[in-house]
Amino acid sequence: VKEARVKAIDINADLGEGFGAWSMGDDEAMLRVVSSANIACGFHAGDPGSIRRTTSRAAVLGVAMGAHPSLPDLVGFGRRAMAVTAGEVYDMVLYQIAALAAFARLAGSMLRHVKPHGALYNMAAVDLALACAIADAVRDFDPRLMLYGLAGSRLLEAGCQAGLTVVSEVFADRGYRSDGTLVPRSEQGALLHDPVQVSARAVAMVRDGGVESVEGVWVPLDAQTICVHGDSPGAVGLALALRAALVSAGFAVLAPGA
Amino acid sequence: VKEARVKAIDINADLGEGFGAWSMGDDEAMLRVVSSANIACGFHAGDPGSIRRTTSRAAVLGVAMGAHPSLPDLVGFGRRAMAVTAGEVYDMVLYQIAALAAFARLAGSMLRHVKPHGALYNMAAVDLALACAIADAVRDFDPRLMLYGLAGSRLLEAGCQAGLTVVSEVFADRGYRSDGTLVPRSEQGALLHDPVQVSARAVAMVRDGGVESVEGVWVPLDAQTICVHGDSPGAVGLALALRAALVSAGFAVLAPGA
Amino acid sequence: VKEARVKAIDINADLGEGFGAWSMGDDEAMLRVVSSANIACGFHAGDPGSIRRTTSRAAVLGVAMGAHPSLPDLVGFGRRAMAVTAGEVYDMVLYQIAALAAFARLAGSMLRHVKPHGALYNMAAVDLALACAIADAVRDFDPRLMLYGLAGSRLLEAGCQAGLTVVSEVFADRGYRSDGTLVPRSEQGALLHDPVQVSARAVAMVRDGGVESVEGVWVPLDAQTICVHGDSPGAVGLALALRAALVSAGFAVLAPGA
Amino acid sequence: VKEARVKAIDINADLGEGFGAWSMGDDEAMLRVVSSANIACGFHAGDPGSIRRTTSRAAVLGVAMGAHPSLPDLVGFGRRAMAVTAGEVYDMVLYQIAALAAFARLAGSMLRHVKPHGALYNMAAVDLALACAIADAVRDFDPRLMLYGLAGSRLLEAGCQAGLTVVSEVFADRGYRSDGTLVPRSEQGALLHDPVQVSARAVAMVRDGGVESVEGVWVPLDAQTICVHGDSPGAVGLALALRAALVSAGFAVLAPGA
Repeated sequence: VKEARVKAIDINADLGEGFGAWSMGDDEAMLRVVSSANIACGFHAGDPGSIRRTTSRAAVLGVAMGAHPSLPDLVGFGRRAMAVTAGEVYDMVLYQIAALAAFARLAGSMLRHVKPHGALYNMAAVDLALACAIADAVRDFDPRLMLYGLAGSRLLEAGCQAGLTVVSEVFADRGYRSDGTLVPRSEQGALLHDPVQVSARAVAMVRDGGVESVEGVWVPLDAQTICVHGDSPGAVGLALALRAALVSAGFAVLAPGA
Repeated sequence: VKEARVKAIDINADLGEGFGAWSMGDDEAMLRVVSSANIACGFHAGDPGSIRRTTSRAAVLGVAMGAHPSLPDLVGFGRRAMAVTAGEVYDMVLYQIAALAAFARLAGSMLRHVKPHGALYNMAAVDLALACAIADAVRDFDPRLMLYGLAGSRLLEAGCQAGLTVVSEVFADRGYRSDGTLVPRSEQGALLHDPVQVSARAVAMVRDGGVESVEGVWVPLDAQTICVHGDSPGAVGLALALRAALVSAGFAVLAPGA
Repeated sequence: VKEARVKAIDINADLGEGFGAWSMGDDEAMLRVVSSANIACGFHAGDPGSIRRTTSRAAVLGVAMGAHPSLPDLVGFGRRAMAVTAGEVYDMVLYQIAALAAFARLAGSMLRHVKPHGALYNMAAVDLALACAIADAVRDFDPRLMLYGLAGSRLLEAGCQAGLTVVSEVFADRGYRSDGTLVPRSEQGALLHDPVQVSARAVAMVRDGGVESVEGVWVPLDAQTICVHGDSPGAVGLALALRAALVSAGFAVLAPGA
Repeated sequence: VKEARVKAIDINADLGEGFGAWSMGDDEAMLRVVSSANIACGFHAGDPGSIRRTTSRAAVLGVAMGAHPSLPDLVGFGRRAMAVTAGEVYDMVLYQIAALAAFARLAGSMLRHVKPHGALYNMAAVDLALACAIADAVRDFDPRLMLYGLAGSRLLEAGCQAGLTVVSEVFADRGYRSDGTLVPRSEQGALLHDPVQVSARAVAMVRDGGVESVEGVWVPLDAQTICVHGDSPGAVGLALALRAALVSAGFAVLAPGA
């Protein structure tokens, strides 16, 4: 008798991205949809209080926690590239991971992964020196942490070099260029909004191991985790639809290593 | 024939209190209700971009603009008292007023008043040295600016001493103690939420020149401007109800000096 | 034959208090004088780069490392009291300790103690709720960490309640009031500058277990660690003189538990 | 009888670049050497207190004042390029100029010019869109303000387009490339330290209208103002030597328009 194997897929979201009196998205709802949460550490969003609340809720709801370190740019939400050195990146990532990890542990859980945020994520996708700085900081803090990065990126390459378990990420609601990079948010075709289309695309990416670029070329992608965004109107609905589609297609939504 | 005189009353709200990617309340709706807007200057909220957008909309909609300077406490939203010196307060208020005034002017309008924010407002209500520091900064920047402050407070006293036109503020949705101070937000009876009750209270405060304290004592208050809050759920509805009640009672909603 | 016992005394200084392009004091020289270093964590001073450099040098020179958490007040250098809640203090202290501890560990050493900075230190000396918030954060992060606090303060009381090893601190260059608190910096007699006088006072405080207040009253003080300041002109010379005086008087300069 | 004409030259320095408890350079000494001061506005350095003190001293000593706006990067001292939009630059420059101008006016003087700082200066030297954003903000705030920029840069071009009086700046202690740009600080030949060499070079640049590049090519430069740095050891000595050399060579050290 042949045994059926259920393939697992992770759904992750950036959460805890309020700051002080300001909130961002519906974290409580998103924590009930995703298997992994990337939690802001204080440099683009997040403050000690929000970190405690978010790690606490993630622990209660059994969501795997990751640190979501950023460039120091609160007013720009960490989305603006900065000419930082590899040394600066190593130090800022270590600082943020360490702070987040303590809250995860005191919430009765533990830090499981690291995913750089915004401009730092994009810079590390193409700049090996910065990617290595991030991977080294993660490994030096705790070599058991997994490193999330864009499928096919330098960041995953650096993570492998550092001996880390890497998790290859895809975006079901973003357009891809033929070289595997994302269409910038400022361009046509950068964002898909229709839940049905995005959900179908997610299933296809995971099942087929790739996606068609905006230029019509097939781009092979290793889809180990799917990012859903929590900060746009309709975000929760889209995330729920995506999750339901994956489950219907026979996938188990689970954090890596869970 | 005796001519009817319409008494004017100002309605003000704290606006432009987002920061970077974060928003706070529905400024566009509030700008259509109030006659005066106190605009965050960057120390508790507000960034150069939000300041430009808020001053621009206020100018278009004909709302009188004020600077809303604060203690430097972004993560605490300017709501935490700090042990600052009078010299520090003078400098920080001047800095914030000056920045805001330029955007008001370039929006085709002009700065009309200054109202300190949060903890600075409360500290200046009872501490004459800090109150004078604020009043002096306002006068030194532009003696034509009006100074908004809590009815009966040291801030209004300091404003008079500095030769400024002061505008006495009341809160229709806050409980008063018998000494004319507000019941702190952390205590019972601090906040009133029912639009009908708050609206009736606003009309009574303006008409009768006072309010009953939580202890049941009549507190005389000079009500020249009424503050409505923009950052709570139902804020716009409450503000609309309050405005309608004032108009029905025969008052004209107008900024001071308009 | 009776064996002579050498009594140990700790000398500590606040170090790593630069920020970005700005430096503060001569850390390299001070690290060669003190047995314990309290290292700024980023809230009143210190950035990830300075933390790495300071922890690295302290590790090389064998100086015991402590976290020096602060209120979030960069422009005020953490010296201005703020109306923070116990919950806010717990979170901000945990965040800062955790970040610092990672750098200490990666420098090949480990975090040994925590000493709150500036206004937070002073507030925790008299406010038991804030003191407990600090002590709880220290214990929850790592119960082996020692807690440094003003001799006779609420902070030491809270540390004992939390089951921590506490280290009682005295200041040889500060005036004391008869109740054991420090004369505020703004008052006459707050600071002593003469190295000979300060050194003699340090020896007397450690030997006699007390000091004479500015009012002339004997104040008993448990002197387990002496704070030397690194940020004034002549600081290194004063620290060297103080250390030499203690050694001459037969004390061994050692971190607690070393 | 033919009358001798004395040619005027401006010497400028970046001043007021402390922050809170931190200082940078010897402003008091530099203010006695230069004819123009570019004063930090709070985004890379400077706080309301330092701005008041610096503008006050500059007014007393008769030094022409300029605003020295920056990218928002305190920890990086505004030296790291950021991917900001032209709109963001317009807003941040306007905010900073306006704040600084008020302090200059209340010091009994007035703002005379604007010179962008660090990475913003370098970006505006080559990116016309950002340069225009700066020039437009200056003109919209006050069209009488002069705009300082690198000789031959896009920033001066943008200033001319905006109808501003531009002031062409040269650096006597920096290496030039053959295209007229500065050798980056990270490269060989970026900085000259010898006061005799730098002074002679300053005189030659002003007299001959150009400089020899590190590749040995003659680069014509319009030298209307010479920047001296205040934040390095020996800065004051170098500035004094440079000033003396210019005076000896027959030049009058004067702010533009003075």
